[in-house]
Amino acid sequence: MSTQKNLWLLLSIFSLNLAIITLASDPDPVQDFCIPNPILASMIKTHHTFHTILPCKNSSEVITNDFIFSNMKTSGNFSETGLAVMPANPTNFPGLNTLGMSFARTDIEIGGINPPHFHPRATELIHVIQGKVYSGFVDSNNKVFARILEQGEVMVFPRGLVHFMMNVGDEVVTLFGSFNSQNPGLQKIPSAVFGSGIDEELLQKAFGIEF
Amino acid sequence: MSTQKNLWLLLSIFSLNLAIITLASDPDPVQDFCIPNPILASMIKTHHTFHTILPCKNSSEVITNDFIFSNMKTSGNFSETGLAVMPANPTNFPGLNTLGMSFARTDIEIGGINPPHFHPRATELIHVIQGKVYSGFVDSNNKVFARILEQGEVMVFPRGLVHFMMNVGDEVVTLFGSFNSQNPGLQKIPSAVFGSGIDEELLQKAFGIEF
Amino acid sequence: MSTQKNLWLLLSIFSLNLAIITLASDPDPVQDFCIPNPILASMIKTHHTFHTILPCKNSSEVITNDFIFSNMKTSGNFSETGLAVMPANPTNFPGLNTLGMSFARTDIEIGGINPPHFHPRATELIHVIQGKVYSGFVDSNNKVFARILEQGEVMVFPRGLVHFMMNVGDEVVTLFGSFNSQNPGLQKIPSAVFGSGIDEELLQKAFGIEF
Amino acid sequence: MSTQKNLWLLLSIFSLNLAIITLASDPDPVQDFCIPNPILASMIKTHHTFHTILPCKNSSEVITNDFIFSNMKTSGNFSETGLAVMPANPTNFPGLNTLGMSFARTDIEIGGINPPHFHPRATELIHVIQGKVYSGFVDSNNKVFARILEQGEVMVFPRGLVHFMMNVGDEVVTLFGSFNSQNPGLQKIPSAVFGSGIDEELLQKAFGIEF
Amino acid sequence: MSTQKNLWLLLSIFSLNLAIITLASDPDPVQDFCIPNPILASMIKTHHTFHTILPCKNSSEVITNDFIFSNMKTSGNFSETGLAVMPANPTNFPGLNTLGMSFARTDIEIGGINPPHFHPRATELIHVIQGKVYSGFVDSNNKVFARILEQGEVMVFPRGLVHFMMNVGDEVVTLFGSFNSQNPGLQKIPSAVFGSGIDEELLQKAFGIEF
Amino acid sequence: MSTQKNLWLLLSIFSLNLAIITLASDPDPVQDFCIPNPILASMIKTHHTFHTILPCKNSSEVITNDFIFSNMKTSGNFSETGLAVMPANPTNFPGLNTLGMSFARTDIEIGGINPPHFHPRATELIHVIQGKVYSGFVDSNNKVFARILEQGEVMVFPRGLVHFMMNVGDEVVTLFGSFNSQNPGLQKIPSAVFGSGIDEELLQKAFGIEF
Repeated sequence: MSTQKNLWLLLSIFSLNLAIITLASDPDPVQDFCIPNPILASMIKTHHTFHTILPCKNSSEVITNDFIFSNMKTSGNFSETGLAVMPANPTNFPGLNTLGMSFARTDIEIGGINPPHFHPRATELIHVIQGKVYSGFVDSNNKVFARILEQGEVMVFPRGLVHFMMNVGDEVVTLFGSFNSQNPGLQKIPSAVFGSGIDEELLQKAFGIEF
Repeated sequence: MSTQKNLWLLLSIFSLNLAIITLASDPDPVQDFCIPNPILASMIKTHHTFHTILPCKNSSEVITNDFIFSNMKTSGNFSETGLAVMPANPTNFPGLNTLGMSFARTDIEIGGINPPHFHPRATELIHVIQGKVYSGFVDSNNKVFARILEQGEVMVFPRGLVHFMMNVGDEVVTLFGSFNSQNPGLQKIPSAVFGSGIDEELLQKAFGIEF
Repeated sequence: MSTQKNLWLLLSIFSLNLAIITLASDPDPVQDFCIPNPILASMIKTHHTFHTILPCKNSSEVITNDFIFSNMKTSGNFSETGLAVMPANPTNFPGLNTLGMSFARTDIEIGGINPPHFHPRATELIHVIQGKVYSGFVDSNNKVFARILEQGEVMVFPRGLVHFMMNVGDEVVTLFGSFNSQNPGLQKIPSAVFGSGIDEELLQKAFGIEF
Repeated sequence: MSTQKNLWLLLSIFSLNLAIITLASDPDPVQDFCIPNPILASMIKTHHTFHTILPCKNSSEVITNDFIFSNMKTSGNFSETGLAVMPANPTNFPGLNTLGMSFARTDIEIGGINPPHFHPRATELIHVIQGKVYSGFVDSNNKVFARILEQGEVMVFPRGLVHFMMNVGDEVVTLFGSFNSQNPGLQKIPSAVFGSGIDEELLQKAFGIEF
Repeated sequence: MSTQKNLWLLLSIFSLNLAIITLASDPDPVQDFCIPNPILASMIKTHHTFHTILPCKNSSEVITNDFIFSNMKTSGNFSETGLAVMPANPTNFPGLNTLGMSFARTDIEIGGINPPHFHPRATELIHVIQGKVYSGFVDSNNKVFARILEQGEVMVFPRGLVHFMMNVGDEVVTLFGSFNSQNPGLQKIPSAVFGSGIDEELLQKAFGIEF
Repeated sequence: MSTQKNLWLLLSIFSLNLAIITLASDPDPVQDFCIPNPILASMIKTHHTFHTILPCKNSSEVITNDFIFSNMKTSGNFSETGLAVMPANPTNFPGLNTLGMSFARTDIEIGGINPPHFHPRATELIHVIQGKVYSGFVDSNNKVFARILEQGEVMVFPRGLVHFMMNVGDEVVTLFGSFNSQNPGLQKIPSAVFGSGIDEELLQKAFGIEF
C-alpha cells in the first residue's frame, strides 16, 4: 500500500469525521465545553462549509482565549447594499462550540440595507450601539412589526421569521446580534428566490413580474 | 355582581386559558394523548388563531374518531394561483394535539403554482398521488434542488428552507404533505415581502425594482 | 506494518465512525441537510443495522435526487401474515438524514394483518390510499381506539403505543405512514414476547397459557 | 344565573386548567421548581388521570417536605401475579413536578412476576435491594438481554423497550426504579393486547392461538 | 354564593393560570410569538416570581414595541459590591416570551465586582462596551479560565458553570450579556452558600473556617 | 511513511473520533442502545476525561452484562470530609450510554459531609438506605430547603441548584442517587471557588474574608 494511497485513505476517513460533526445539534452539552481542534478547524474552512460543529481538543490543551473573541472592534467589509457582517461562530470563536449560541456584528452604511432574510434555526436579539436603523420583521399573517431603532435599543426577531434593516440616519449603524444556535443559518430572500435559478415561469406567476 | 359581568369575567379567564395553550410546543408529551375540548376548539376558531395547541377533554370522553381525519377525499378551494390546500391540524384533527405532527392535502390546477414559501417550525415530506409537478427548494448557499416529480414519488423539504411547486402536467396535481410539528407555520414570500408593508425604499434597494 | 494490518486498523476506525453516527438523535439540525456518503451507506447495510444516521458527503456533491424517493410505486414482498412494508429512511432515502422524519408504504393482502406493534421513538400518521382496513391502538388504560378506515382517511397513532391493522375489505389495502423520527424503531409484540426467548415460566404466569 | 350553574361553570374552567396542565412535557424547567397546589392535586386524583403535571403554588408556600417522599419504607399491595408497585410521581411527591424524573418501589413475592411491559416515555434504571430476580428486556431485533440479578445489582431498560421480572429466589424481591420522565407511561402487554378488546380474529392471526 | 366568595374563587383560578404558565420551558415555540397580557404581567409582579413565562394577548393587539426594549441606555442602581444589573426578560420585554432568549446590561464601578455566580439554565455570552474587566469561569476540574477583557471583546460562559468579574480599570465597566433561555436562573455563591442558612457545622467542615 | 508516523496519524484520527463523541448530548436515542467499545473505553480513561459518550460496538457483540452494574455492593474510598462516591456512568456501566441517565452510591462517615455542590446538567433524586443525613438545597432566592432524612426517605434536588449533606447519625450513611443525564457534571463550591485560583482580591470582596 503506497503512502499516497495511505494518505488518501486517511484523508477520506478524515473527511468522514468532519462530515459526522455536522450531524451534531444544539442540545444541552454533556460536557462543560468542547474546544475545536485548530488544525481541523482550518481544514474545514478550506474544503467544508463554515458554521459546522467541530471536534474538540483535549481539555488539557484548552486555554482562556478559546472562550474570548476579540475581532469585533471594527466593522467587516461592506457589500454593495452597504452591509458589513462579522459573525462569531465556532469556526472563529472556538468556545462557542456545543454551547448553543453565536454572535455577530452588523454595520450598515448611510442609506444601506440588510435585505429581507431569515434564520431557520435561531431567534435573533439585536442591540443598537450607534445610528438610526429602520428595523422589523413579518409574521405568518404578513403583518409587519417595524420602526426606527436608536442607539441603546434592543429588538428581537422570532425564530424563522423574515426580518430586515435600513440605515435611516446620518451616520453608520452599528449593532450586535446574538442567536440561540451556534449555527442559525441564513436565507436572503433576494438571492435565494431571484438569484438562485428557480424556474422563471414559476417566479413570474408567483410575483406577477417579467424578468 | 351581575350575570353579565360574571360571564364577562369568566370569558376573560377563558381567553387566558386559550392564551396559555399557545405557549406549548412540540416536545415529547407526558401523557398518551390530549384531545382538545370541542367547545373550546370552536371558540378558538372564532376569536383566536388556528393551529394552536388546545386544552384536552377528559380521557373518558375521548372517542376513536378523535384520532381519525376523513376530510381529505376531495380538494379544497383553489386560489388565484391555482392552489388548494387542506390542512389537518389539531383544530380540525383533534388527535394530533401534542403529538408533534400535522398533515395537509395540496392540489394544484394545470399550470398552477404553490409560490415560494417556507415553514419555520417543521421539515415537510410530500408524496405525489397524481400529476406531474416541478418541485424544489433552495439551500443557504442559494443552490436550488428541483426537478419534476411524478405519481408515487416522495420529496423532503428541510425545515425552514424556501420551497415551491408548479403543475407542469396536463391534469390536476394531488399530493400529501406531512410535517414534524403540529403547527409548522408558514411564510409565503410574495405576500410576506411585497404585500406586507415593508418600507418600499428598502424593497427597491433589496430587489432593484420599481413599484 | 503490513497493508493487511493497516487496512484492518483503518476499518476498525471506520466502524468507529459508523458507531459514532448511531449516537446522533432527532434534534434540530445545525445545517440545512446532511446527505449520507453512498459508499458508507452500503458498508453500513452490509455490516451494520439499518436506520442509523449516516455521515454526510460534501454539500458540493449533493444532488436533487438525494431529496427524492421513487421506489414507493409498487408494494414490497408480502409476509406470512399478508403484510408488505416498504420503509423510506436515511439508508435508502439520503435526504431524510438529520431531518427528523421517515416514511413507509404498507400493503396488506385480503384478510392479512399488521400484528400488534409499537414504535418507541415516533408518532405515526397513516393515510389510506386503497381498501378497507380495521385499524387502531391501545392507550395506557388498555382502552382500544379502533374502527374500519376507508380510502382517503387518515389516522394517528400516538408515540410508543401498541397499534395494529387488518384488511377487512375485498382488495389489497395500501396506506402510507409518516413518522416524526428518522428511525422510529419497532417492536412486534408476537415475536418480541413469544418468539424471543423470555423464560417460559414467566410467560405462562403473565399470559396464563401453556406452550 | 344560579350558584349551581355558576359553580358548574367555574369547575368546567377548572378542568380546563387541569387539561392544559397535561400539555406540559419534560423539557428543562424555566424555574427552579414548581410545587403543585395540594387542593388541585386531590381534585385531579378524583376526576382526572394520575401522573399529570400540576399547577404550582406560590414559592413562598413551598416547604422542605415538598421535596421529600417518605412512603417507600414498606411495600404496596400485591397483585394476583405477586407484584406490588409504589410509584412516586408529582401527584404524591410534589417536588418532582417539572423536574423530569420519577421513582418507584417494586416488590415481587416468591415466584411472582412483573409481566412484560414497557414505558413509552422513559428509560428505567432499577436497583435490587433484596432477593434474586430474573430480569431483562427485548430489543428491536427480538434479542433478549436477561439474567438473574442479586442484591446490590443495577440494571437499565432502554426507553420504550419491553422488559419483565420474575422472583426466582426464596424471599420477597425489593427493588427501586428511577425514570427520566415525571410520567414514564406504562403498557402491560397481557392486558393491553389480550384484555383490551382488539378484534379477536386479528389476535388469532397475530399469535396463532384460539381463545 | 356571595360576590366576595365569587371573586375569591375567580382569583384563585386566575392564580392557577399564572402557576400553569411557570410550567412552560424553552422549547421551539409552536407559534410565531406570544406577547404577555400586560394586566397579567403586572399581577404576576405583585404576587408572583419574576422571569416566568406569561400568557399571551390576542395577536391582533400585538404592537411593534412589544418586540423592542428601550431601557438599556443607562445603568441600573449599584449594589454594595459596585454592581448594577438591568435584566431584559419577558416581564419587562414582552416580545421575548417563548423565544428562548434573554438579555442584560451589567455595569461595574471602579474596583467593583460581580461575585462568583452561575446560571442553571443558560449559556451566557458577554460583550464589553466600556472599561477593563477581569472576567472568567471555573470548569468541573476546578480549572479557571480568566483574563482581563477590554472594550469590544466577547466572552462566553458555558451553561451552569461558576463565573465572576472585577473592574480592574479606571472607569465604569459596561457590558451586555445574552442568554439562551428566557429565564437563565441565578445562584450567587456568597449569598446562596453563606447567607442562606445552611447548617454552620456543615459549612465549617466544608470550608474549614470559623464564623 | 514509517509505521511510527502511520500509527501516530491513525491515533490522531482515533482521538478525533473520541473527541467527536463528546459532542453528543442527552436527546432521545435513535437506536435501542449503544454499548461503548471496551477497547476505546479504556483508551478514553487513559488520555481523556471520564463521563464522555463513547462509540458503540456492533449490536451482535452486545451482552446482557453490558446493561448490568454490579459494583455498588460496597462503598468507595472515603475522602478527608468522610465522603465516598461510587459513580455508575457509561465509562464503567456501558449500557447507560445514550440513554439519558446515570447513577451513584454515596457513603458518608459519622460526622462526615458532602460539601455544597451542584450538577449543571441533571436533576438528582436520592434514596437513603441507611443512616440519618441532614440534606438540602438552596433555591435562586437563597431559601434553604433542608432537614434530616432517615432510612427509606427520598429527596429530589432540582437541576443546577446547590445542595449538600451531613451525616448526623451514629452510623455510616448510605444513599443512592439517580440523575436524568448520563453526565450530570459537578462543581464543588469549596474547591471550585476557593481552591481554583480565582483572583484573591475578587474573592475577598465577594466573601468579605482574608486568606
